[in-house]
Order: sequence, then structure tokens, then C-alpha cells
Amino acid sequence: MQRILDKIKSYDKIIIHGHKRPDGDCYGAQFGLKNIIKNSFPQKEVYVVGEKSDFVDFVGQVDTISDDIYQGALSIVVDTAVKDRISDQRYTLGQEVIKIDHHIPVDDYGDLRWVDTSFPSCAQMITYFYYKFKNELKLTEEGAIALYTGIVTDTGRFRFRGVSQLTHQLAGLLIDKGVDVEYIDGKLSKETLEMIALKGYVYSNFVTAKGFVYLKMTRDIIEKYNVTDEQAASVVGLIGGIEGFPVWALFIEYPSEIRIRLRSSGPTIDKLANQYGGGGHAKAAGARLDSWEQLPQFIKDVEEVVKVYNEV
Amino acid sequence: MQRILDKIKSYDKIIIHGHKRPDGDCYGAQFGLKNIIKNSFPQKEVYVVGEKSDFVDFVGQVDTISDDIYQGALSIVVDTAVKDRISDQRYTLGQEVIKIDHHIPVDDYGDLRWVDTSFPSCAQMITYFYYKFKNELKLTEEGAIALYTGIVTDTGRFRFRGVSQLTHQLAGLLIDKGVDVEYIDGKLSKETLEMIALKGYVYSNFVTAKGFVYLKMTRDIIEKYNVTDEQAASVVGLIGGIEGFPVWALFIEYPSEIRIRLRSSGPTIDKLANQYGGGGHAKAAGARLDSWEQLPQFIKDVEEVVKVYNEV
Repeated sequence: MQRILDKIKSYDKIIIHGHKRPDGDCYGAQFGLKNIIKNSFPQKEVYVVGEKSDFVDFVGQVDTISDDIYQGALSIVVDTAVKDRISDQRYTLGQEVIKIDHHIPVDDYGDLRWVDTSFPSCAQMITYFYYKFKNELKLTEEGAIALYTGIVTDTGRFRFRGVSQLTHQLAGLLIDKGVDVEYIDGKLSKETLEMIALKGYVYSNFVTAKGFVYLKMTRDIIEKYNVTDEQAASVVGLIGGIEGFPVWALFIEYPSEIRIRLRSSGPTIDKLANQYGGGGHAKAAGARLDSWEQLPQFIKDVEEVVKVYNEV
Repeated sequence: MQRILDKIKSYDKIIIHGHKRPDGDCYGAQFGLKNIIKNSFPQKEVYVVGEKSDFVDFVGQVDTISDDIYQGALSIVVDTAVKDRISDQRYTLGQEVIKIDHHIPVDDYGDLRWVDTSFPSCAQMITYFYYKFKNELKLTEEGAIALYTGIVTDTGRFRFRGVSQLTHQLAGLLIDKGVDVEYIDGKLSKETLEMIALKGYVYSNFVTAKGFVYLKMTRDIIEKYNVTDEQAASVVGLIGGIEGFPVWALFIEYPSEIRIRLRSSGPTIDKLANQYGGGGHAKAAGARLDSWEQLPQFIKDVEEVVKVYNEV
């Protein structure tokens, strides 16, 4: 961490990247880090680039920059294990690259890396970074809101096993910086009548296999309920935690593939996700199918994972 | 707090009461306090009495005791603002009564009172009590699970405004005592297929008024979906936080009355609840109707509250 701070100090321009389809933790880490650098070293130029996320745009707005800004700049990539998923790919144009991530490493990119899978969110890593050097660093309420959002979204509101005393200690520090937890919850919980209607659809149309519950989210359903892809994907949690069904998944139809949001409350499912072109955490992973024809085989594979788990 | 500790030390028998229809916070505070007293002073007799809650029975089992045990005993009542709601009512048989609560006081019962509405849960008060005297008190993992459950349930997983740095600090302390957050979440999140079906019903049958969403949970629906009253009542959160509808409510039909779970993300609704034979917090309250005939008037009154709020 000291080396990362030294690098930050030694550059005048810093460009912060995240991953494609950014979530709350990605945005939280990106904008939280920007806030810390900008307030601690006001003379530096700091940019956040990458895809836009409507869901968490209240934490900050991404910058649009030209290639020449990368000249002599430091690229920092947060929350991204796989090179191809970095958004955008111009991070390589920077003079040096730093990787900060809490996922199991897939690609060892970057000149300097801080990877620690014991953190349940990348935003917690950034908060910890601030906390460690708080005598020389500054963080304002705006940055605290970003970081708190990242911690809350990636831990499912402090529910997942990676949550530790440190998580709560750092969340408390952010609240002390002025975070209004109900404001953030309101932003993250906003529902539209369309989404409520979609939820009714989900609860009435999921399918049960052996120890496995799933739902097919086809294009026509997404269009019928007039929701965004992001909103459609967010319903995966609704079919989770049902007694007797330790694994659940949402299959979201895209023009050229079917993306899978795979979740578990029992068996680890990241290896299965690897077999289907994806990856992630032990109990929350992403994967993909080329077409619906692969679905029966995927279901069989999940049932096998559940069976093995139940036999242990 | 020192006086409460002194009282506890001076009695050989302590009986801990909560409120009727106990929730996670009531159970958490009761069994957390029992754990602290029992482990700190093993020679004392400590009982938890009151109604049973299936929802949170994993934190502990209530004791069945005869009246004579109250002879020379200390009664402690937690999490209860209204005398009539204390479960069971034999708390008066104790030699002295202590009240520990975080609700706005309604009845000033008890010989000694510790009431602090700045705490978002009564379990946090008990945890704080332990923390303040941790040099003389002991708390085991079992008690930490109870207290963590109380904190989590009464704050909606650290979401409500009363959550402070202290809340997170104390939650962290409990995790350090061995609490497995995923275990607790699993217990609190367990869903049955019946409950999932009921959710489908809720999302397909709620009614919208001006700024107000509600659902009538009649006896035949509760029976049709084969859920307990407690489960039926728990769905109130499903219709909350919808854009343009800052107040929502669930009406649950009982043989002799209709109980209302009233919630808000905007206007305060506890005064309205008072008018309808109830009370509670500013944004989460309970109330009652004598019959469905009162419903139209109640809806009008809610609409008026929303109107006034929007005009400010």
C-alpha cells in the first residue's frame, strides 16, 4: 500500500478504470479513490473513465477523455480480475498501471498490484487505504457516500461471509464522514411500478429442478415489462434462499448469448461458472450459454454439483 | 447503566420479559442479556419468558416458569414501550422492575428505567451495556448471535437512519465474538415455496391510492397460501419504496380486528397510527381497524398526510 501511495504522489495525472457493466462496488471504489486523491492532492488531475451505470450514477459521473491525456499518466484499475473486462481498454496507454482488486486473480496485469481476496468489496480496500494513511489523506462526504455504496452493494448489505469486524469498523468511519444510510438505501431501493410488476412475473414463473431454481429472462419479457437489462438482471436475488434449493440462477437473453447469474447458499459454484465461460466468487458467479439449447446440460451440471454437495 | 449493573448483581434470580408477538430485536435483547448475566454470574438463575417466536427461535427458547419463581426476583423488561404489550404480565410479581427500551416512552413503568431512543435497536443497547462493562462482564458466541440478530432485524440490515458509527462498531465486536453473518442471514432469509407463491400474490394484487400503496391480507389468502400470520405480516416490505408512493401499508385480517403495518419513506406516520389505536416509530408503525368499513377513511387520512408532506 505504501508503494501505491508513493506512485500516486509521483504522478500529476491519474486515470481510474473499472470493469465493464460496472456495479456499485466498481463505481464506489473508482469514485471513492478519485475523491481521496483529489482532496488530498488538489493540484493533481484525476479522471474516472469507463462505462456508465444508471443504477449507481448518484455516486458520480464518468469523465470522457481523449487519448492524449494518458500521456505520462498513471492508470489505476479497480475491482477487475480479467484484463478483457477492463473498461475502457485504453488503460494500457498510461505510463504505469496499478491493479487494486479483491477477486481471485485471473490475469496478473499491472506494474504494481494490490490484490486481497479477504476483502468483501474493493470499496473496503479503498476505505482501508484511506484509513491507513489518514494522517496524510483526505476524504469528504461525497467520497464516503461512494465507498459506503460499494461496501453495501458487494456485501448484500453486510450479509455475506467476507464481512468482518474491519468491514463494520470502516463502514462506521464512513458514516462518521457524513454518510446518510437512508439516503443511500433509498437510492439503491428505488422501485418503479414496472419493476414491481416484473417481480410478480418472477415469483409466478420460476422453474424448479433438483435443488436448483431458475428463471429464463427472455427478450420479450424484458420488453414487455419495460425494464433495463440491468434491472432485469437484478431480480436474481428474488429466487434465492428457498428451502431445499441451495442453487439458483437467472438466464438473461442477449442478442448473441445468454448470460447467467448463478448464486448459491451451499455448494461452491465458481468452478461450474468457469466451465461455462465465466467466473466470480464461490457463491456468486457469472457464466454464459451460446444458446438455449445448452440449458438442459447446464441444469444437469448444477444438479450434479448439488448432489455431490448433499452427499458430503 | 451502572445502577442497572448493580441491581443485576444484587439479585439471585432474574426474569427477562419482552413484548407480545416478539420480533428479532425483542428476542435478541432478551437472550443476549440472559447470556451476558449467565456467563458473567454463573450462580444466578436467569429466565427468558414471554411468547414464542418461530421466526427467530434459533436465538433461544423461552422458559416456562411458575409464579413462585418471581418471589424475590428482579424483572427486566426489554424493547417494550407500552405496559399492556409486556409478555407475560407477571413481570409485576418481581420484587423490582427494570425497563430497557429504545422506543419513544408511552408508559413509564419500572422502578429503574434506561430508555434511549437514539439506539436503533434494543439489542444494540444490550451490546453497549456489555461493551461499557466488558472488564466485568462475559458474552459468548451464543449471546452474540442473539444480539447481532436483534441489530440486523431492527435496522433492516443496517439500512435505517438510526444506524450510527456505534452500531457498526458494536456489530463488529459481535462478529469478533464468533458471529457467522451468513448463518444468521440464512436463518432470517429462509423462504418456503409457499412464501414465494405468496410474494407473487402480493406483487400482483397491491392497490395504489394517491401516494399510498396497500394490500389487504385477508384470512382466506393466508389460508390459501398456507403461511403463518407472522409470515403473512412480513411481506409489508415488498410494496415499499416504490417511486411516487412514499407510504405503504399491509392490512392483516384477524378474527376481531384488522391490524395495520404502516410504513413510510417520507412523511412521519406515527401520529396517524396513534389515531388508529397504534403507534411506533416515525416511519414504521402499527395500527388497527375495527372492520374493513373503516378502510376508505384510513386511506383518505393517509392521502392527506402525503399531501401535506408534498406541499412542505
